[in-house]
Amino acid sequence: MRKLLIINGPNLNLIGVREPSVYGTTSIKEYINSLKTMFDGVCLIDEYQSNHEGAIIDTLQIAGDSGYEAIILNAGGYSHTSVAIRDAIAAIDIPVIEVHISNIFAREDFRHTSVISPVCHGIISGFGLMSYELAIRSLI
Amino acid sequence: MRKLLIINGPNLNLIGVREPSVYGTTSIKEYINSLKTMFDGVCLIDEYQSNHEGAIIDTLQIAGDSGYEAIILNAGGYSHTSVAIRDAIAAIDIPVIEVHISNIFAREDFRHTSVISPVCHGIISGFGLMSYELAIRSLI
Amino acid sequence: MRKLLIINGPNLNLIGVREPSVYGTTSIKEYINSLKTMFDGVCLIDEYQSNHEGAIIDTLQIAGDSGYEAIILNAGGYSHTSVAIRDAIAAIDIPVIEVHISNIFAREDFRHTSVISPVCHGIISGFGLMSYELAIRSLI
Amino acid sequence: MRKLLIINGPNLNLIGVREPSVYGTTSIKEYINSLKTMFDGVCLIDEYQSNHEGAIIDTLQIAGDSGYEAIILNAGGYSHTSVAIRDAIAAIDIPVIEVHISNIFAREDFRHTSVISPVCHGIISGFGLMSYELAIRSLI
Amino acid sequence: MRKLLIINGPNLNLIGVREPSVYGTTSIKEYINSLKTMFDGVCLIDEYQSNHEGAIIDTLQIAGDSGYEAIILNAGGYSHTSVAIRDAIAAIDIPVIEVHISNIFAREDFRHTSVISPVCHGIISGFGLMSYELAIRSLI
Amino acid sequence: MRKLLIINGPNLNLIGVREPSVYGTTSIKEYINSLKTMFDGVCLIDEYQSNHEGAIIDTLQIAGDSGYEAIILNAGGYSHTSVAIRDAIAAIDIPVIEVHISNIFAREDFRHTSVISPVCHGIISGFGLMSYELAIRSLI
Amino acid sequence: MRKLLIINGPNLNLIGVREPSVYGTTSIKEYINSLKTMFDGVCLIDEYQSNHEGAIIDTLQIAGDSGYEAIILNAGGYSHTSVAIRDAIAAIDIPVIEVHISNIFAREDFRHTSVISPVCHGIISGFGLMSYELAIRSLI
Amino acid sequence: MRKLLIINGPNLNLIGVREPSVYGTTSIKEYINSLKTMFDGVCLIDEYQSNHEGAIIDTLQIAGDSGYEAIILNAGGYSHTSVAIRDAIAAIDIPVIEVHISNIFAREDFRHTSVISPVCHGIISGFGLMSYELAIRSLI
Amino acid sequence: MRKLLIINGPNLNLIGVREPSVYGTTSIKEYINSLKTMFDGVCLIDEYQSNHEGAIIDTLQIAGDSGYEAIILNAGGYSHTSVAIRDAIAAIDIPVIEVHISNIFAREDFRHTSVISPVCHGIISGFGLMSYELAIRSLI
Amino acid sequence: MRKLLIINGPNLNLIGVREPSVYGTTSIKEYINSLKTMFDGVCLIDEYQSNHEGAIIDTLQIAGDSGYEAIILNAGGYSHTSVAIRDAIAAIDIPVIEVHISNIFAREDFRHTSVISPVCHGIISGFGLMSYELAIRSLI
Amino acid sequence: MRKLLIINGPNLNLIGVREPSVYGTTSIKEYINSLKTMFDGVCLIDEYQSNHEGAIIDTLQIAGDSGYEAIILNAGGYSHTSVAIRDAIAAIDIPVIEVHISNIFAREDFRHTSVISPVCHGIISGFGLMSYELAIRSLI
Amino acid sequence: MRKLLIINGPNLNLIGVREPSVYGTTSIKEYINSLKTMFDGVCLIDEYQSNHEGAIIDTLQIAGDSGYEAIILNAGGYSHTSVAIRDAIAAIDIPVIEVHISNIFAREDFRHTSVISPVCHGIISGFGLMSYELAIRSLI
Repeated sequence: MRKLLIINGPNLNLIGVREPSVYGTTSIKEYINSLKTMFDGVCLIDEYQSNHEGAIIDTLQIAGDSGYEAIILNAGGYSHTSVAIRDAIAAIDIPVIEVHISNIFAREDFRHTSVISPVCHGIISGFGLMSYELAIRSLI
Repeated sequence: MRKLLIINGPNLNLIGVREPSVYGTTSIKEYINSLKTMFDGVCLIDEYQSNHEGAIIDTLQIAGDSGYEAIILNAGGYSHTSVAIRDAIAAIDIPVIEVHISNIFAREDFRHTSVISPVCHGIISGFGLMSYELAIRSLI
Repeated sequence: MRKLLIINGPNLNLIGVREPSVYGTTSIKEYINSLKTMFDGVCLIDEYQSNHEGAIIDTLQIAGDSGYEAIILNAGGYSHTSVAIRDAIAAIDIPVIEVHISNIFAREDFRHTSVISPVCHGIISGFGLMSYELAIRSLI
Repeated sequence: MRKLLIINGPNLNLIGVREPSVYGTTSIKEYINSLKTMFDGVCLIDEYQSNHEGAIIDTLQIAGDSGYEAIILNAGGYSHTSVAIRDAIAAIDIPVIEVHISNIFAREDFRHTSVISPVCHGIISGFGLMSYELAIRSLI
Repeated sequence: MRKLLIINGPNLNLIGVREPSVYGTTSIKEYINSLKTMFDGVCLIDEYQSNHEGAIIDTLQIAGDSGYEAIILNAGGYSHTSVAIRDAIAAIDIPVIEVHISNIFAREDFRHTSVISPVCHGIISGFGLMSYELAIRSLI
Repeated sequence: MRKLLIINGPNLNLIGVREPSVYGTTSIKEYINSLKTMFDGVCLIDEYQSNHEGAIIDTLQIAGDSGYEAIILNAGGYSHTSVAIRDAIAAIDIPVIEVHISNIFAREDFRHTSVISPVCHGIISGFGLMSYELAIRSLI
Repeated sequence: MRKLLIINGPNLNLIGVREPSVYGTTSIKEYINSLKTMFDGVCLIDEYQSNHEGAIIDTLQIAGDSGYEAIILNAGGYSHTSVAIRDAIAAIDIPVIEVHISNIFAREDFRHTSVISPVCHGIISGFGLMSYELAIRSLI
Repeated sequence: MRKLLIINGPNLNLIGVREPSVYGTTSIKEYINSLKTMFDGVCLIDEYQSNHEGAIIDTLQIAGDSGYEAIILNAGGYSHTSVAIRDAIAAIDIPVIEVHISNIFAREDFRHTSVISPVCHGIISGFGLMSYELAIRSLI
Repeated sequence: MRKLLIINGPNLNLIGVREPSVYGTTSIKEYINSLKTMFDGVCLIDEYQSNHEGAIIDTLQIAGDSGYEAIILNAGGYSHTSVAIRDAIAAIDIPVIEVHISNIFAREDFRHTSVISPVCHGIISGFGLMSYELAIRSLI
Repeated sequence: MRKLLIINGPNLNLIGVREPSVYGTTSIKEYINSLKTMFDGVCLIDEYQSNHEGAIIDTLQIAGDSGYEAIILNAGGYSHTSVAIRDAIAAIDIPVIEVHISNIFAREDFRHTSVISPVCHGIISGFGLMSYELAIRSLI
Repeated sequence: MRKLLIINGPNLNLIGVREPSVYGTTSIKEYINSLKTMFDGVCLIDEYQSNHEGAIIDTLQIAGDSGYEAIILNAGGYSHTSVAIRDAIAAIDIPVIEVHISNIFAREDFRHTSVISPVCHGIISGFGLMSYELAIRSLI
Repeated sequence: MRKLLIINGPNLNLIGVREPSVYGTTSIKEYINSLKTMFDGVCLIDEYQSNHEGAIIDTLQIAGDSGYEAIILNAGGYSHTSVAIRDAIAAIDIPVIEVHISNIFAREDFRHTSVISPVCHGIISGFGLMSYELAIRSLI
């Protein structure tokens, strides 16, 4: 069965915990669990979250050797600045799909550019937590 | 049953006809038909294609009064320049989802900016023709 | 008696129909009629609206040979991008007055620049539908 | 009866005195007087001219407490640079209409941007001295 | 015998009709006819003119399947803004030669960049109507 | 006992008078008086306000020869444009502390740059009227 | 009693250890201790230092749930680049005050912009180690 | 005999008074007097200094009607920002020579551009106080 | 009989010698000879090549006094940087036609701008060595 | 004997493991060992690799107190963004030599600028793994 | 007696020869001779002209060892582009005064920046050929 | 035995002659001689210096046919501006190594970009005259 890895970057652990009026009351953990249920028997889904740029790079590198078929990456604020994460994506063989919960193009100017987009397979932005589900569907 | 409208902009009528090594040999018409089959009984799907910026605006305006629940728009080359299409999207009440077949961020610099993204509900870019299917799934 | 032509660009047919809280409930058609009444016996007023950039250029060219003394142009979203409309204005002999319903300088950055302003006779922006009336008064 | 204040900025006292081939031989004083006659019984018109940025700010502040219904401001060269005049306009409650005698968009690049436009009610540019009359008409 | 298509964009129908002091009194129709005579027996020359961006794209697409050996394109004001025309040129198999009557580099700054140049075979600019003749000669 | 001079630039005389919902109902005069009481016996505090750039420069120059130990300057809108005030600060020997009532970095882009910051001793921005008190405390 | 957290970013552990001619010989630890003494009985002060961007984000998130009333943040070199720290500040409910030991506006150009300033409550820059004391005073 | 007017802008009254190690100990007044002696019998030299942008504009306007043959202007910090002074120079008939004591191109970037240079007759920069003498010599 | 001068700039002596897969095996000398044959009896063609910017300027100046009717200039890499060559072209009375072998707009960004284009009569770019022939044909 | 420290930044642990067609099959570990052999008896060489920006800063700080004579730093993707690493380099007393395996100036635009170059002793870029050897030779 | 060297750059040999309506009919040679007469007994004046950037650099270097007290340099079009001439000026010990016949700030944008100005002693621009005389007077 | 060519650009003949406090008292000639001694029996080293851009291009072209295995190029000030030298490097088959004596990234902004770097094999900058030695070592 296919194995997928979801990597969440900085501050995404706060989804469902803070600013519920914006992001709802479903925590990222609960949502990941619902994804696991939804795709039970179709694919195996692991998740990793870190606020550390270096830890995201470590995880991307390791994932490349751990049998994952694809990575779904929400790099949060690092999306706009991290050449190092970009290089890690480019160095590994498995496809990476970039997701954003909000429509980053409808926010501040500095969020309109993602340095990782050019090396990702595809980009999904603006569908709330459903962005992750769409990314998985693109793979199965 | 939900009614969705797919609007395809300039040169998208050539998909499957020209450059098959890049885009495959499935024509856009055939693909739309396969989508209709795939979502048969789930939603009704209409398609409109034009190379004319004004015709796309006309269609967006009319769609707003024709019972469509959502629009899936691939504005092609107009994505990067058309303030007028942006204004039409902003003026109508139904959500518009922006799709691109290729990853526009991995192409030339002038394709990295879409003037319509800020007024669209969500963006899906880079999944080939499957970008349309993912857009439909985000709505159902 | 003087003949004037009002040309309205993309999405201006929606004035009074959509977003009434912003633009009021007077439709552009009703407003043009009220202008005709207001200036009855002073000047003849024709109106043309299109969402098509090319159709606006066609109309500008024809107007130059149809006895109009001046054109009042609200090019909407094309104001900010259309070199081709600019060239049409520059090519005809009769003066063109640029009008905008809203104050374009108080909106998004990309609306602050109009490529047609340098070839127009004068600019009136921000007085609601009254911008058209002021443009007419500047001519009589 | 309505009271309006016209504020003229730097070098506008030279209109009609210098460069008659460009601006004609009507002085700004004479023109203001003709406006007073034209709108006699409709509104009271006061005028103030200064080459001093600070004096224009003083006058804008005082006007806010002096019963004027609106201000018509031609800030001349300060239009393009004065954040302080902008702040004064934003701080007072009465509407300010920005006027320019020439079409500033047909002149040098640095005149294409007015820092005060975003906080003004409307902009009228390019109708010669008649720009002032149109501004008054927008108010009555 | 070779078949060539000349496509003329917005406002080029006015050549010879307006601004004779700049462009002379030869109309574009007359000039095309003189070209047909000049190359009689050498190549067949068709011409199409439109002010509509979309119509130019339609024509480029159709020309690709109509036996033309090459296209000579003067896209006028659309040269500087139309990503959609660029995409049409890139999508068809036959070579496109970009021509301009005037030297676009000696005009306003915004005319110095043509978004279609990178996908055209060659560029000829500044030789008056003779630019078309030179383009034809480059093909025979 | 130490003598300090507070210089307030354009529109700061309106604090507490206009926009009370934003700035409260304490006038700048009342606030300065409360500062005098707060620091009674610790330092002498004078205040000067002007809407005139030149008058602020005059005052900075004179203050340099009047026994003040330091100047607390809120240059308002001139902060972003006045090279001349910058030069005056650089020319005098006593330290100048730049204060802003609001967080200028959370406002419009053109307020993010202050041309006087590089020649000031320190910057305090965003603490409301308390910004002045903190500036005084930095000196005692 | 109020609890405050001081977070110091990269290289700030070197204050007082390296470059004593510039920064003096007081170490950051000694200075924090002197602050604790100075505000003994007024507020409780904790300090955290890290060279790791992710660790600063972790700490900001945790501080939001640990009873601190406010955070005083010197993000050092991350101030100019870290969208991720900015997002963490925006996500937590307690106010964050940005401090810098030196006047960042008197240093290299790339230090003139802080991406975290817009989401901080206030900014204090240029008062040496006293910047921290002023930040505390702004809170009590 | 020829009459010349020297206009000195902001902070130039401090020359010779402050920063003697940079500018020497000759005050601007003393230097002007030495110029009067040097050119005694050749031309009459008046001087005017102000820190007020508006006062410099007033003086430029008046000078145009007072029999001066030329103006020597050191606009100090206003050189880099004042469109209004530029407009005053352009409006008067007599030539204006721009002088700077220091080489403005060897100082900070923002001093490399003078908005008044394009409307001045000539520019002399970097010869210390002798810049004024050279300007006078250019006129006799 | 007409006399024409072809001036070739830096590295053009290598055409046909190096990179034959790109430029073919015809040397520039051979091609110039074939042009001489082709236009035998129609016009006289001289050629000059140099890698030295100054030598190109010298030649342009001399050509102006040597009876040439026109110059065909391929300035190579100097096209993008040489204000001095531009000035030489502007100073001489005979027309200069700019040619490029490759389509400079399809190459690196820094080749998209030619500083000499605005002072040349026309530009021909992208037709291989035939660019020279087209330039000659434009003159006869 | 001299002690040198090589610090390798993000993704450099993948050298020799991934993309062998580009980087060869020598792993970074193997190469470092070959360097140790090559300089046996000349200098002691330690190596540290991390994907964590903070860990690189920690290591730079510690190296300053650990008897190393110099540091050879390949900061990978952090070279282009990390002000914090730059500050660490500037804060320590021992020289840092910047190395890159590839010629960063022949790659994407965003790799052309290194924020750490201005505070490094020298830069060596483009010699493959031999860049490290050259850096060592510069020190002995 | 003082020895001065005037160095004239590209195209300055054409002064007085071409474009007499702009530059008059005095050739540069004649003007230099008139300067020699004017300053006979005061200083010795040599002149050197070249269209070659390298020859200007050679001459600057040699002049540094040939007993000249100062150099007056009109670098023509090289003023705006030549870092190499700038470096030569910076490397020699004698002062260099930059002169321009026309007011370079009143011409095209690319002439507003001179890369050599920051390393010259002073700049004189816009006084016609008299610019040279003023430069000499600044030295005696 | 290998033959190497060192090409030195403008002003490099002054090394060791001028500014000894910066560059020491070893002349470039003496240093080249010491290199010849150092690599005696390993490789043959020739050197060429010129202040002329064209002469450097000539030499690069000739070197390509003269049996040199590699070129070590210090293009001095031309490094930042010369597209023509870049084209010469790209046209020849032998590798070119770019060297700079100083760290060009620690100097003025305009020295941070070298237009020749993208076509050079490697870059060595900042090691004083030893930069040449390192370049040679990279080749043997």
